[in-house]
Amino acid sequence: MTRAEELRALHLAGGKPLVLPGPWDAASARVFEEAGFPALATPSAGIAAALGHEDGKTPADEMFAAVARIVRAVSVPVTADLEAGYGLGAKELVARVLETGAVGLNLEDSDRTVGPRDPREQAERLAAVRAEAGPGLFLNARVDTYLHGGGVDEAAERARLYTAAGADCVFPILAPAEDLPRLRAAGVEGPLNFLARPGDPSFAELGRLGATRITFGQGLLLRTLAGTKEIAAGLLTA
Amino acid sequence: MTRAEELRALHLAGGKPLVLPGPWDAASARVFEEAGFPALATPSAGIAAALGHEDGKTPADEMFAAVARIVRAVSVPVTADLEAGYGLGAKELVARVLETGAVGLNLEDSDRTVGPRDPREQAERLAAVRAEAGPGLFLNARVDTYLHGGGVDEAAERARLYTAAGADCVFPILAPAEDLPRLRAAGVEGPLNFLARPGDPSFAELGRLGATRITFGQGLLLRTLAGTKEIAAGLLTA
Repeated sequence: MTRAEELRALHLAGGKPLVLPGPWDAASARVFEEAGFPALATPSAGIAAALGHEDGKTPADEMFAAVARIVRAVSVPVTADLEAGYGLGAKELVARVLETGAVGLNLEDSDRTVGPRDPREQAERLAAVRAEAGPGLFLNARVDTYLHGGGVDEAAERARLYTAAGADCVFPILAPAEDLPRLRAAGVEGPLNFLARPGDPSFAELGRLGATRITFGQGLLLRTLAGTKEIAAGLLTA
Repeated sequence: MTRAEELRALHLAGGKPLVLPGPWDAASARVFEEAGFPALATPSAGIAAALGHEDGKTPADEMFAAVARIVRAVSVPVTADLEAGYGLGAKELVARVLETGAVGLNLEDSDRTVGPRDPREQAERLAAVRAEAGPGLFLNARVDTYLHGGGVDEAAERARLYTAAGADCVFPILAPAEDLPRLRAAGVEGPLNFLARPGDPSFAELGRLGATRITFGQGLLLRTLAGTKEIAAGLLTA
């Protein structure tokens, strides 16, 4: 079994959702691996923050280098959030992901400059990545509908298109937990990534609602940095 | 006043010791700046860990790039731990430090391959760096005597030589707190860097004992990662 197949099998195991913490550097990746997680999913916003960039403004070379450092630091499979793909064609994008050693990628269907992409164009792009990578990369298709003020119907339509185009998983970011059963009712099948935030239901409950994969964006970095802030405050009064 | 002079003035202000937290990336640097610290000192071991390298094995280019990212992220002066100088001559070393935007550097008097350097050769190296940089870089001369099993007398002799060669500060790493007054009694003058570890006296007490600057090596990263480990454990049981 290749590493990408290993990651795919983890998504399809059923039962509890697959929880994938998001490392922002090699040190955090090692912590998550040592805690026992079977795979990791890098968050682009977390890596951007660690490198000092605004979210969405990390140069592609720096993002790929950061992902490669994380992959080298651990032995579990790593999938990489590569934003909207940095304007790369499918061939180059796949080659550069494979070069980092990552076994999967996220691709967003909107970006800051062009806004939401046409869903059919995005489906074609996903199909091109799938054709180029074959089964060798786990492809998570982000659906940015909720980011742009849309709801269940548009998100479900995009998700169905992306799954049909060959995505292994769909990721309606910022979908509220209560929309998970609605997305399932609207025909979203297969692995479904949910962004968990403070106050959300338990992972088991999210699983019952329809989530198969749980990620945190830069949430775990922000929680870690809250600890750093307390350490810093302690030094000022020591 | 240049940034290096600003950093020098902070060391010479008297009163409480200057506490310099050690950021390992841009995000932690921002946390320390926002907490109110007037300057930061990068730890080579912390940066190595964040990048996934063993301490002492970070390629020079990666270390300089990491320092530059930290400098760009904050507006306070940053001084950089540059280990034993990566085999660079004084001219190139100074040029590369200045290129990062850092206003100071640490230089160690031993390394893993050659062990302790001859103290007079190290003094010459420090003098060459001072001659090359002028007052434009704050030069912290690390004294590795305690690392290699030596004690007060040898550490004080090296510290005096390095100060005479133009170092702005000396740093007898792993000196126990009770040796601070002994180092002072043995003629160590000017700024004296103490590596603070859990269980050490308060900063004020360290100041009374003779320390003028307090740093933490990779200690603040390790404390931060202990928090990450708790967060990870919480996810496994959520």
